Amino acid sequence: MSANRIYLYDSTLRDGQQTQGVDFTVGDKIAIAHELDGLGIDYVEGGWPGANPTDDAFFAAAPTLLRARLSAFGMTRRPGRRPEDDAGLMRILGSGAPVVCMVGKTWDFHVEVALRSTLAENLEMIADSVTFARTRVAEVMFDAEHFFDGYKANPDFALRCIEAALNAGARWAVLCDTNGGSLPHEVEAITREVAARVPGERLGIHCHDDTGNAVANSLAAVRAGVRQVQGTLNGLGERCGNANLVSLLPTLMLKMGYETALSREDLRHLTHVSRVVDERLNRAHNRHAPYVGENAFAHKGGLHVSAVEKDARSYEHVQPEDVGNARKILVSDQAGRSNVLSLLKEVGMTIEASDPRIDRLVRLVKEREFIGYTYDGAEASFELLARRELENLTPPFELVSYRVMDERRMTETGAPFTLAEATMKVRVDGELHMTVAEGNGPVNALDRALRKALLVAYPVLVDMHLVDYKVRILGAGAGTDALIRVMIESTDGSGRRWTTVGVSSNVIEASWQALSDAVAYKLYAA
Amino acid sequence: MSANRIYLYDSTLRDGQQTQGVDFTVGDKIAIAHELDGLGIDYVEGGWPGANPTDDAFFAAAPTLLRARLSAFGMTRRPGRRPEDDAGLMRILGSGAPVVCMVGKTWDFHVEVALRSTLAENLEMIADSVTFARTRVAEVMFDAEHFFDGYKANPDFALRCIEAALNAGARWAVLCDTNGGSLPHEVEAITREVAARVPGERLGIHCHDDTGNAVANSLAAVRAGVRQVQGTLNGLGERCGNANLVSLLPTLMLKMGYETALSREDLRHLTHVSRVVDERLNRAHNRHAPYVGENAFAHKGGLHVSAVEKDARSYEHVQPEDVGNARKILVSDQAGRSNVLSLLKEVGMTIEASDPRIDRLVRLVKEREFIGYTYDGAEASFELLARRELENLTPPFELVSYRVMDERRMTETGAPFTLAEATMKVRVDGELHMTVAEGNGPVNALDRALRKALLVAYPVLVDMHLVDYKVRILGAGAGTDALIRVMIESTDGSGRRWTTVGVSSNVIEASWQALSDAVAYKLYAA
Repeated sequence: MSANRIYLYDSTLRDGQQTQGVDFTVGDKIAIAHELDGLGIDYVEGGWPGANPTDDAFFAAAPTLLRARLSAFGMTRRPGRRPEDDAGLMRILGSGAPVVCMVGKTWDFHVEVALRSTLAENLEMIADSVTFARTRVAEVMFDAEHFFDGYKANPDFALRCIEAALNAGARWAVLCDTNGGSLPHEVEAITREVAARVPGERLGIHCHDDTGNAVANSLAAVRAGVRQVQGTLNGLGERCGNANLVSLLPTLMLKMGYETALSREDLRHLTHVSRVVDERLNRAHNRHAPYVGENAFAHKGGLHVSAVEKDARSYEHVQPEDVGNARKILVSDQAGRSNVLSLLKEVGMTIEASDPRIDRLVRLVKEREFIGYTYDGAEASFELLARRELENLTPPFELVSYRVMDERRMTETGAPFTLAEATMKVRVDGELHMTVAEGNGPVNALDRALRKALLVAYPVLVDMHLVDYKVRILGAGAGTDALIRVMIESTDGSGRRWTTVGVSSNVIEASWQALSDAVAYKLYAA
Repeated sequence: MSANRIYLYDSTLRDGQQTQGVDFTVGDKIAIAHELDGLGIDYVEGGWPGANPTDDAFFAAAPTLLRARLSAFGMTRRPGRRPEDDAGLMRILGSGAPVVCMVGKTWDFHVEVALRSTLAENLEMIADSVTFARTRVAEVMFDAEHFFDGYKANPDFALRCIEAALNAGARWAVLCDTNGGSLPHEVEAITREVAARVPGERLGIHCHDDTGNAVANSLAAVRAGVRQVQGTLNGLGERCGNANLVSLLPTLMLKMGYETALSREDLRHLTHVSRVVDERLNRAHNRHAPYVGENAFAHKGGLHVSAVEKDARSYEHVQPEDVGNARKILVSDQAGRSNVLSLLKEVGMTIEASDPRIDRLVRLVKEREFIGYTYDGAEASFELLARRELENLTPPFELVSYRVMDERRMTETGAPFTLAEATMKVRVDGELHMTVAEGNGPVNALDRALRKALLVAYPVLVDMHLVDYKVRILGAGAGTDALIRVMIESTDGSGRRWTTVGVSSNVIEASWQALSDAVAYKLYAA
């Protein structure tokens, strides 16, 4: 085993489950496990058998992992009983996973006050749980809970807990900064001391982001000798989240020269995996995420953009393509001409920099942004605007009018029901179509009425559908009078996605604008 | 000056302006400048005079700061001219701000390729710009652009740039990791070398979060001797953002024992300032932000919660109150009884832990969460649910039916207009009210119709209004058929805020549920 080899342990499916607003279905867990496996992660922690029905169902489903080892999380035996008599421990050992990661106390304060046990018994709990587990599963690791606080309080006891686990045959002892309160220089110093006593290649690190230092703490521990890094995708986890494996991987591999199970080709899938997880959990992507965020390589300032185009190396710290990301030039109020020109180039529109129509387009963009539109994140709407302005792109259809009715009444039995109906007049190729459709909401009804009107002329629309619909109020404090901005993300059979925007004080009208741009873009790009 | 004193420099109003999706108005900048001043920040960078109209208007408005010094950002003079002949530099020096922060190149590659100048001229540009500026403003500082990359490429040149600025009278030379690619151990090592050559108390640090290490890099530089830290509120900034001052302040003051201009009382305003900035910019709060995030001290797991209640010190790394935050117990599927009990205690409902009605409430919560409701972040809806279930709280009004109509037509001149009308039947105290109202959108029309029906019986509603309205699709890929979750945040005259939730496949119905809970909560809490 190379001294340079880092093992990655992902606990998204357990720690990530603790994130506020996150609730995995079994299907979610299986899908994410396969993504982690495909990426090249060494260990996938599937959950805590016995803790909740979703985890039990996941382990029962026994997903086949081709590269990663599946791990089950749990606790050492409780005080005062043998491992084989501890129902919780037996549950974990019987989950079918080849690897078990058990957590135990290493802070004397917790042992005496929270567990109401003794230091000696705690060491036995660790040692005999690990020893027993080794007879049941292929690999055992020990999570040293609150290790850094424990070490500061009583270094000798904390170390003896680690040694007890390793001597009993644990493959790894993982130092956990459970409350996230340790700082990088502390983690590095303490880890060096531990690695002077036990072999670094049997140590792991598990950090939380309560001070914004989870990534730095993990890197500090690696520099001090640990060779396993635990974390989650996109930094999921309770409170401020766990160490973000997505931020750590490129730094470890591209900047610090460590080896992982990932090839350079695997690393190029990183952005995709990060986004798939967010989509699965219906969470907004963090556009500012290191390496994989949509804006990680986005340049907004006007003078800056021309410098970047001259020599990307001088402004970008890694190549976006190495992590599956891409450079992006943002359209905005500040940047004026040069940014709009860059964006036009990106969407494949060749136009002379001195063309006076550029000024008109820039003015138009600024006007629309002033009333609430944003083209950051809605590039398909920008492209339509630009092509209509510069290439006289004719709209594929023309809305004449619509009327949406939305009613909530009671059935005879007193249960509430709602129905929505949209009537629409649309002109397509000079011909007027009047359609009506019902839907389970007003936007859905509008969408259906529009498709009825367009599908005969444009059968290519059949594969198109909406994947995300976001609404925000613009301008704080104006209540239900405020301007509303709607962003719609659409996709078709090809997997391509595009986002469009609409703004109005009327949520239906704003939705209509975004919907109509989405359809027009599909018909343009066909 | 104490060796322990850290000076804080905030560039939210300049770097933050570069954030995708952020566009400050002059009013926004003035308000945020006052918040920074009130908090205790030493320097408030107001913008770049001459770069855009908003920044010019801000400096012209000359907001009065009581504690902080206002700073203007800009560049050193360009090659081949004297400082007094450089229009851009003169603009900055004439802005009225007593402090000027000028950026210059320190990476030989940039000087030669991007600027097309010579190393010798670059040193002159720095020296004479600073010398000249000292005759015009009270304090000058130098931002050493791309310093760490420059030092790695040519340490001698990079250092001479720093020395040129300090020898010419700059109060500070700030080491900038402009592309965010440096790692903490590199920043610490390089900074130590620099601080061996020039006094650390004249050095500053300016980091970006492209590897997720901006906070750690800033702390590393402080440990290596710098005494000024630059950053932004909430880590605003282009690409992955700047170093987050909100994460740095509590660590520097509460954990590392440094002094700043903030008192302990000032620090208790940190959470508030962080949220005010987000609200001003209409950005979603980061619920997971270190120290100030709504979930920074939130506990979700069931067994964990009882341990925390026994001894918070054993699980929380600092006291939430020290930064103006509070502990939070989350309701969720996982945690069952003990979490619901904790939440009930928090909303002031005393009930026996063994009371069988708790089971019914827990089951109800799980059922509703299963179909898409979330009470994380919608605690007012939870409280109503709990009080109706456990205390037989009677709803203050009963919806019989509503009908919303939303039309988009053309005026005679061909301009589109939309109108929305809501008709509603509501029973209040046994009496049936039928109202109609128009609105500039369907939710606004419903809101108005409801108030018409309720204001006579409940005049206290007159101060209530909606401040945020968020809509998300649940369940990826289901297009406009999907379930929609609406969260509404409301406030009244007292400044108190509460959030309610509604779920339906119909956006109007989901909005109605959240609206009706919002009103019911106000009437309950009165």
